[in-house]
Amino acid sequence: MNVKVSRKAHFNAAHRLYRKDWNEEKNDTVFGKCNNPNFHGHNYELVVSVTGEIDSETGFVMDMKVLKDLIKNEIEDALDHKNLNVEVPEFNDVNPTAENISVFIWNKLRPHIEKTKELEVVLYETPRNFVTFKG
Amino acid sequence: MNVKVSRKAHFNAAHRLYRKDWNEEKNDTVFGKCNNPNFHGHNYELVVSVTGEIDSETGFVMDMKVLKDLIKNEIEDALDHKNLNVEVPEFNDVNPTAENISVFIWNKLRPHIEKTKELEVVLYETPRNFVTFKG
Amino acid sequence: MNVKVSRKAHFNAAHRLYRKDWNEEKNDTVFGKCNNPNFHGHNYELVVSVTGEIDSETGFVMDMKVLKDLIKNEIEDALDHKNLNVEVPEFNDVNPTAENISVFIWNKLRPHIEKTKELEVVLYETPRNFVTFKG
Amino acid sequence: MNVKVSRKAHFNAAHRLYRKDWNEEKNDTVFGKCNNPNFHGHNYELVVSVTGEIDSETGFVMDMKVLKDLIKNEIEDALDHKNLNVEVPEFNDVNPTAENISVFIWNKLRPHIEKTKELEVVLYETPRNFVTFKG
Amino acid sequence: MNVKVSRKAHFNAAHRLYRKDWNEEKNDTVFGKCNNPNFHGHNYELVVSVTGEIDSETGFVMDMKVLKDLIKNEIEDALDHKNLNVEVPEFNDVNPTAENISVFIWNKLRPHIEKTKELEVVLYETPRNFVTFKG
Amino acid sequence: MNVKVSRKAHFNAAHRLYRKDWNEEKNDTVFGKCNNPNFHGHNYELVVSVTGEIDSETGFVMDMKVLKDLIKNEIEDALDHKNLNVEVPEFNDVNPTAENISVFIWNKLRPHIEKTKELEVVLYETPRNFVTFKG
Repeated sequence: MNVKVSRKAHFNAAHRLYRKDWNEEKNDTVFGKCNNPNFHGHNYELVVSVTGEIDSETGFVMDMKVLKDLIKNEIEDALDHKNLNVEVPEFNDVNPTAENISVFIWNKLRPHIEKTKELEVVLYETPRNFVTFKG
Repeated sequence: MNVKVSRKAHFNAAHRLYRKDWNEEKNDTVFGKCNNPNFHGHNYELVVSVTGEIDSETGFVMDMKVLKDLIKNEIEDALDHKNLNVEVPEFNDVNPTAENISVFIWNKLRPHIEKTKELEVVLYETPRNFVTFKG
Repeated sequence: MNVKVSRKAHFNAAHRLYRKDWNEEKNDTVFGKCNNPNFHGHNYELVVSVTGEIDSETGFVMDMKVLKDLIKNEIEDALDHKNLNVEVPEFNDVNPTAENISVFIWNKLRPHIEKTKELEVVLYETPRNFVTFKG
Repeated sequence: MNVKVSRKAHFNAAHRLYRKDWNEEKNDTVFGKCNNPNFHGHNYELVVSVTGEIDSETGFVMDMKVLKDLIKNEIEDALDHKNLNVEVPEFNDVNPTAENISVFIWNKLRPHIEKTKELEVVLYETPRNFVTFKG
Repeated sequence: MNVKVSRKAHFNAAHRLYRKDWNEEKNDTVFGKCNNPNFHGHNYELVVSVTGEIDSETGFVMDMKVLKDLIKNEIEDALDHKNLNVEVPEFNDVNPTAENISVFIWNKLRPHIEKTKELEVVLYETPRNFVTFKG
Repeated sequence: MNVKVSRKAHFNAAHRLYRKDWNEEKNDTVFGKCNNPNFHGHNYELVVSVTGEIDSETGFVMDMKVLKDLIKNEIEDALDHKNLNVEVPEFNDVNPTAENISVFIWNKLRPHIEKTKELEVVLYETPRNFVTFKG
């Protein structure tokens, strides 16, 4: 009896989409306004889901307080109120698109989730744009 | 051509998370504030989804009015404005976690859905905590 | 590394659920208030999702601006502020249920999405009724 | 100690914005797509608020069940799944704009609310367009 | 230049609506399902707003972190995961209706807000029922 | 018969809260994480409301298309995907707090709204923090 448990979290950050090895014109063509060299930013909404068996003793798949703290320590502390390009080493040479940020978050959380359980990350960059990564 | 049709519903209830066979200290350690012996409560938001073929005559997978009434009769009447631990027999010895409530709801609805169709239950305990059960 | 990228859009339209080859009584029994011959209407919320590999150069699965424009040109221009039964030829003999509209949208978008990528359409007819079609 | 109590409700309907005494060109200029002669439609979200003293016996300004039933009987039964221009006599010669619908709703409810209490109507035509009328 | 700043918070609790000095029949007639002697519960969403002059040095009407901590210390710690009737002394003899809870919250916060500033409390008992109190 | 009409819009931007004439320590004490010199960002949700008489010919207080375009031209073009501190001259020496941004928006829109009508701006910096300015 597999159940998926999901927890919503939130962080906000600045970023810019561009490639250092492209000239300005190509960056503008591909990334448009998102290539603003002075950065822009978002309120990211994050949904982290863990799928696994219900523990028959507790009735939990995973204690939501533990998941909440894990997201706080691994993700919010690393990304909240940060400039992703400048302050998060993983994005020095990787474009901080929603897709790449979702993979970054998944990779940060995966070691902390039991191996028998599945992990899914949904990341809203805006209320109208969001991505889903399941590993 | 399988389509999933989904219907949102709502109920509110009181509950308490604890095990009768654990002492108070262990219950507090595992369930924290949710172990309040005087109970606390939630507005549960429920999404019930049925997946199957579109009926070529009606254009429906399942009549939403029928699904709405089914949720009303089987789930809302059983859980709305109730104390889950005290008034719902299935939770006398089973912890009313979101996980276990989603399984309870699925089991109550399954006999009323055509066998060829799949059933999925998403249950929001709070806007930030929710679970998904597909059987 | 497959990621699903999703884009929300919006259109509003009038429709009526009925079959020309059924008498009024049968239409009323099956479709109820939705069979009003003078039409009623909805604000449809649409989520279009494309799943595929992240492009290592851009960090995109699909450029959201391209997806936004595609939804605008193929779906919003065809359905927004329209009477679905009267003005959308596909619904002259097909009931414009949420199920059938989701299939219509999927079929309109599919040729414009790379073949290696998967397409999913979620259509909210009301905040409480919605459908999902994955082809 | 005045408190405002608010209740949300919902109806969906078809409508068309135009004036019979204007020619097509002027109607198109002023009302654009909303002048579609085949109608379009919306999911209207309605918030009805009543402001007054808390009754010291019950702790209510107004019983929400009474307000819910009042909205059902006076507004939802009159407007839900209707064509506003064709089926609601008040809009035969009055344009069913959100503004005019909010005044219509306020006038229908006002006689049923105690004279010492204030009435406010908020009507969402779409999630992005809404109006407020306080009499 | 008066600006209103608003902060959303959240708590969940159990409660029961009834009067000790009424018999069961009268309590049932007036309070219906809300009179369940075993309690039911809600996720309360709270919006606290403070209106005043913008401080020309900081650009703040009130530091949101200070308001957030104030709500945490005065309201969430007092009400979250509590049984309002049993564990909150103010509701021993006062019905914990949304109206009365909003007044309770306003009275708890008022001494901590500068006298020159206005205070407003909006309390959602469910997504469809909410109240507003301005003192 | 005064009605308030409201239109929601959206922009995202980077910003930093600090005063050039304060040292780093004082900026950190007052503005905390919001003082990150590399900037952070938000998805700002904006609600612009105009209150006035319903035009008896059109049934409009103000044409929503006109208001939508006005917000686009005056506000979104000036703020969307921008670094508020660096690229918006008004915030070179004024802290871009939500309060100050709401006043900026109000001042930009006021000349374009008829003098007999009232203007109100609500600005969400995050889903939990928002401000209201009425002039």
